[in-house]
Amino acid sequence: MKVYFDNAATTPLLPEVRDAMLPFLGEAFGNPSSLHDWGDAARMDVDKAREQVARLIGATKPEEVIFTSCGTESNNFAIKGIALAQQSKGKHIIISAVEHFSVLHSARTMEKLGFELTLVPVDKYGVVDPDDIRKNIRKDTILVSVMHANGEVGTIEPIKEIGKITRENNIVFHTDAVATAGYIPIDVKELGVDALSLAGSQFYGPKGSGALWMRRGVRIMPLLDGGTQEGGRRAGTENVPAIVGLGKAAELAMADMAARAEHLTFLRDRLLNEMPSKVDHVVVTGHPTNRVPWNASFTVEFIEGESMLMMLNAKGVAVSSGSACTSKALKASHVLIAMCLSHELSQGSLLFGIGIDNKPEDVDYVLEEMPPIVDRLRQMSPLYSKFVKASKGGK
Amino acid sequence: MKVYFDNAATTPLLPEVRDAMLPFLGEAFGNPSSLHDWGDAARMDVDKAREQVARLIGATKPEEVIFTSCGTESNNFAIKGIALAQQSKGKHIIISAVEHFSVLHSARTMEKLGFELTLVPVDKYGVVDPDDIRKNIRKDTILVSVMHANGEVGTIEPIKEIGKITRENNIVFHTDAVATAGYIPIDVKELGVDALSLAGSQFYGPKGSGALWMRRGVRIMPLLDGGTQEGGRRAGTENVPAIVGLGKAAELAMADMAARAEHLTFLRDRLLNEMPSKVDHVVVTGHPTNRVPWNASFTVEFIEGESMLMMLNAKGVAVSSGSACTSKALKASHVLIAMCLSHELSQGSLLFGIGIDNKPEDVDYVLEEMPPIVDRLRQMSPLYSKFVKASKGGK
Repeated sequence: MKVYFDNAATTPLLPEVRDAMLPFLGEAFGNPSSLHDWGDAARMDVDKAREQVARLIGATKPEEVIFTSCGTESNNFAIKGIALAQQSKGKHIIISAVEHFSVLHSARTMEKLGFELTLVPVDKYGVVDPDDIRKNIRKDTILVSVMHANGEVGTIEPIKEIGKITRENNIVFHTDAVATAGYIPIDVKELGVDALSLAGSQFYGPKGSGALWMRRGVRIMPLLDGGTQEGGRRAGTENVPAIVGLGKAAELAMADMAARAEHLTFLRDRLLNEMPSKVDHVVVTGHPTNRVPWNASFTVEFIEGESMLMMLNAKGVAVSSGSACTSKALKASHVLIAMCLSHELSQGSLLFGIGIDNKPEDVDYVLEEMPPIVDRLRQMSPLYSKFVKASKGGK
Repeated sequence: MKVYFDNAATTPLLPEVRDAMLPFLGEAFGNPSSLHDWGDAARMDVDKAREQVARLIGATKPEEVIFTSCGTESNNFAIKGIALAQQSKGKHIIISAVEHFSVLHSARTMEKLGFELTLVPVDKYGVVDPDDIRKNIRKDTILVSVMHANGEVGTIEPIKEIGKITRENNIVFHTDAVATAGYIPIDVKELGVDALSLAGSQFYGPKGSGALWMRRGVRIMPLLDGGTQEGGRRAGTENVPAIVGLGKAAELAMADMAARAEHLTFLRDRLLNEMPSKVDHVVVTGHPTNRVPWNASFTVEFIEGESMLMMLNAKGVAVSSGSACTSKALKASHVLIAMCLSHELSQGSLLFGIGIDNKPEDVDYVLEEMPPIVDRLRQMSPLYSKFVKASKGGK
């Protein structure tokens, strides 16, 4: 049996998305910036994709959508570009402690360039308290960035509430919506954000596709200098097949959102509810209910996530142990640490990224395979034998 | 008749390249950073592509190849990343006056961040004199960037000679090889460069693919911060289909280079030689012989390039009037201005980007269609009537 439960790392391409892309890998290869028929054909489809993406996030002006090469580029562009463009007003940036590394490390880079950075904490569910944003705002605060939801633990953040605070204080507010775009309804006006990042590879669109939505009038400095593409905000020949695919994925996500969410939530809740009863010493991470439909995350005590991954892989199951972007770093997740989990617990993190193609049988299979795997690994775990000894000895 | 002569803007995808990409738009959708079978499969093909690209440029260490999303990203990464990483040694950058905007504007951005920039001139053929590089080197010079060839006028630059000078002075040397990679033999050791940019969309590979080769040991600061992809030098989920396509395009270009060059040079020289005899007041731009095989560029006096483009397009012919990246800016090219062409002449620039699929009949067709188009446009040109009057009046 083959079960792909790593849609947190990347999703497969929907056949309809691939079909939409194929002409642009063939006859329709023109450069959208070229002034002839080949260019015109490509440009029209890029514009259509811009409208499709705008619609997914409730943006009324398609020209506010800037296409990028991935979510990471969107986040780098937002943090660095907004900070550099607004620096005459101040040099203080606020982000949450659980941001994706593309936000966190971009902010750290700005720190090296003379900016000041405040990380606001989260509670044990990974939730940011809007009051913590308010308290940390200074006269020279120019940018707040809090993710719409955390991909590792699924928790949805109170963006709307934070948006009210940033608006009152006239501070640019960016949200990384890579974990939510295509899964839960997004309306940039309602959220009260000024900039929003999304990535096609996370909702059945192509790798190499992403977008940054920027409210008109908010200044940003380009990350990629050069030609006049994307209204002069992102140079580089447009990746037309990826852009068209992103547009199609947005359209499909929009159309199927409710049905997809219902299916994903059903599978997610079975995992969240049954895993702790099947496997000892398993804790659900992230918020118990206010989480994205596709995410079921746990920590398994006394075990390293990596070894669980390998044993599950041997059974045909793909999962992850946090962000794929840092899978090779083999470090405890900064997200779980920020949620005050111990280093030991953080090591045993296990993330199921549920996909729209997953079936209830996939969940059954995993729930069957997990207990013996955990048992075997615990037998080899010095931490576990210490724990057992302590429990026995401790009366 | 349909004739695509705008391979300077972008090339079509070779069917073999598309076929190599297709599995990665289907079943093989894994994230190369994931620790399971889906990830492993993708990772192996990314590594293979890295070897293919390394081979195209004579790099012995594939891990020196960093995949990016396009040539523009590679150039931004090189200029900004090297400057920021080397700034403890000095803050002076030298580039040529005819660099692509992705180099020129990146350098201008660094100027805003406190660096100093020197533009070295070119001669009337667009050639940089290595002595001008030598003369402008200062104690605080940390980076020299001169393109391998200029895409707008085709001129090949004396990179090897410049490389000797930068090595003697222990200065990092970057070359933008977007116009040459895949067309003329490149050996990074022989050229004596430390960093080299290339783009798949320019030699029958996919849009959204690019690479920056960096000699091991040369320090660079990431442009995209985040995960640990590409050895921590370029974060973001790898665009596997594009990377695999770039690798395949590199392999094919390597195998067919001599045959392609012969074919392209034949068509190019027919255009270069016959256009001036068919159309009055036409001047070849760029070096008469030392130019990339695919480029035939001209200026047509008393006429605006844009109007020629439109009339040629009406006849089914796609050409460009300089860089597609700035086609909408409608400004005189900085390249032609640097070559001391007058603004008037620069306006009438016409660039044929010859493709491997072009046939001698395509050249014949264009040589037939050009004279009546130019005649018609000149009849409407106030500049031309002034010129005719002056020639008649001027005895």
